Amino acid sequence: MSITTPRGFRAAGVAAGLKSTGARDVALVVNDGPLASAAAVLTSNRVQAAPVVWTRQAVSDGAARAVVLNSGGANACTGPEGFADTHRTAEHVAAVLSAGAATPEDEVGAGDVLVCSTGLIGLRLDMDGLLGGVDAAAGALDPDGGDDAAHAIMTTDSVAKQAAAQRDGWSVGGMAKGAGMLAPGLATMLSVVTTDAVVDAATADAALRAATRTTFDRVDSDGCMSTNDTVILLASGASGVEVTLAELTSAVTDVCASLARQLVADAEGASHDIAVTVRGASTEDAALACARAVTRSNLFKAAVFGNDPNWGRVLAAVGTVPPDVAPYDPLSLDVAINGVQVCRAGGVGEPRELVDLASHRDVHVDVDLHAGDSEVTLWTNDLTHDYVHENSAYSS
Amino acid sequence: MSITTPRGFRAAGVAAGLKSTGARDVALVVNDGPLASAAAVLTSNRVQAAPVVWTRQAVSDGAARAVVLNSGGANACTGPEGFADTHRTAEHVAAVLSAGAATPEDEVGAGDVLVCSTGLIGLRLDMDGLLGGVDAAAGALDPDGGDDAAHAIMTTDSVAKQAAAQRDGWSVGGMAKGAGMLAPGLATMLSVVTTDAVVDAATADAALRAATRTTFDRVDSDGCMSTNDTVILLASGASGVEVTLAELTSAVTDVCASLARQLVADAEGASHDIAVTVRGASTEDAALACARAVTRSNLFKAAVFGNDPNWGRVLAAVGTVPPDVAPYDPLSLDVAINGVQVCRAGGVGEPRELVDLASHRDVHVDVDLHAGDSEVTLWTNDLTHDYVHENSAYSS
Repeated sequence: MSITTPRGFRAAGVAAGLKSTGARDVALVVNDGPLASAAAVLTSNRVQAAPVVWTRQAVSDGAARAVVLNSGGANACTGPEGFADTHRTAEHVAAVLSAGAATPEDEVGAGDVLVCSTGLIGLRLDMDGLLGGVDAAAGALDPDGGDDAAHAIMTTDSVAKQAAAQRDGWSVGGMAKGAGMLAPGLATMLSVVTTDAVVDAATADAALRAATRTTFDRVDSDGCMSTNDTVILLASGASGVEVTLAELTSAVTDVCASLARQLVADAEGASHDIAVTVRGASTEDAALACARAVTRSNLFKAAVFGNDPNWGRVLAAVGTVPPDVAPYDPLSLDVAINGVQVCRAGGVGEPRELVDLASHRDVHVDVDLHAGDSEVTLWTNDLTHDYVHENSAYSS
Repeated sequence: MSITTPRGFRAAGVAAGLKSTGARDVALVVNDGPLASAAAVLTSNRVQAAPVVWTRQAVSDGAARAVVLNSGGANACTGPEGFADTHRTAEHVAAVLSAGAATPEDEVGAGDVLVCSTGLIGLRLDMDGLLGGVDAAAGALDPDGGDDAAHAIMTTDSVAKQAAAQRDGWSVGGMAKGAGMLAPGLATMLSVVTTDAVVDAATADAALRAATRTTFDRVDSDGCMSTNDTVILLASGASGVEVTLAELTSAVTDVCASLARQLVADAEGASHDIAVTVRGASTEDAALACARAVTRSNLFKAAVFGNDPNWGRVLAAVGTVPPDVAPYDPLSLDVAINGVQVCRAGGVGEPRELVDLASHRDVHVDVDLHAGDSEVTLWTNDLTHDYVHENSAYSS
């Protein structure tokens, strides 16, 4: 149930002093091959952290041998000096891994090392700490080290997020961090997914993009998009099993879906997990736009925190989507909350008192546009006192 | 300093039992002329409350003699029955006002009565209470009744919002309610603005649209847009002073700007008022899009609540605006918070510790895109425990 479930990988997670708490904060993942196929999906934010800029370039050849991840600092908005820090980190990892190389072919170049950082924006990293952490992590690399790595990338996460999908003779494993700033186009989340299937880089890229589109991209905790979001897929080929794009996509999607649900369940300060299904839409994009409007309504999400099935706020949110994006008749809208049809044909339906939110963490909002056959489900959380508290206190 | 500051108006505000607290909940504003010029700007939400549908139709001829407003129920998402309730309210107001008519020309038709409602969505109004309230309000109409009316439209507002602009021989007065759900395209806000200038309906409409575009539309408390937002301008002509469109626009803008600032200052549970200025933009729309991204960032607004000048969250928000909407180079962005240049050229500037948010309610965020000459300022609030509390408890 980790990134070292698939064969051909070693991992480690160590404490390097980047976090003031003394918790683990540097993770290293190494792909021992025989393949080094790699793909990455990166934040679409125009303000991109140095490690995102680096990783985009480093993975462009479809190959990577290692990923180094740190918590305790995002290395975003840190200028040319911050980019130099990321470059230096990758070079250091490459040198450390090459020191044990049996043959020149086993040597690792900096361009084969992907870098991820998470933490506060706008501060330089403690490079002495980080490079020392890389040394320690390299010494601790273990074929069962996935769990250690998953713990080392946590920030405000309360639990490590891990998943695996077992197939016939091959598998996919994954880890993720993120507990706020989850938003479409990814979120402040880092995720590494591994497989021992035999796949080339183009297949890995296609599978990862298909998987993230229907998993991480359908999680929206607070509508905010981060500067550091990264999802990486590494394929070692160590199983010797060749798989099709469809098979790989299915397994990677299973792992990403599990990780995405774990992120929502651990979102900062949430007391309810909310699934918003919009059905009867003219297109998938129309359904997505309406669902996003609901998952971004602070008013609705605060109502859910208060165990108040305030369906008027659902309609008010859906009503903000322009007609050219999502055609529908406002007087045809139906809304059910946890199975109770509280709104029928844009008007009052069953009594809202029939909806019991207090006894359930899970809330299911079902909106029917009656305008087509497309359907989408997004996941989000309620807006709570604890969300405000955690996000007001994070950097101070 | 009220809607009865201009001559030619009477107003009243009474308690009709729509609010469980026994507070005033029905307001009536009557334009005694000689003119009955009227204009309205209404929510752009596709889910529109019955009074919005009614008012849009009733004002389409550019004339109105009265506005009836109730708190204690929004009459939104209430179907054909809800629309019938609004129609009946307008007819009742017309009948009551016509009862005292000296001549047939003084009689008021239902189509001359605009209707506004505010409160919970999805519940029918208590019509016996409302119509009784109309009778009481008609009996209490007073040339100095503006203050009473302003109090009767309050919901979670902690203070009544009123303003006036005195010009040479004529004036503009206004009242507004709203303390949450303030968003572009208006907000859950109702506002009535009056003037005794001599203006026709087309001039009133042009002035009102110009004024709201740069005032109410630049207030964004929580990104949510309501089903009931209405701003009405009534002109009595009682001053006998003819004014130009520019003169009227200036005075109406002054009143709307004052009311908009009062709305932000009283936003539900806020502890900081935040002005976000985006300058150096290629167009006004580009500046607006970037400013809106910041005013809608829960993470940034929660940081301000924690007195944390977390400028990285400002950059992360600006970074979500697509390049075709707002061209800029992320490595050229400057951010100042309360005058301290915390971010320079997309990287670290002055130490964030120099920013003192704890001692000031007002926060000014200044973003320079270095991509043109356009500039926009939006107003919003921080995201606080009290915001979550008030909006989780509102309907229960």
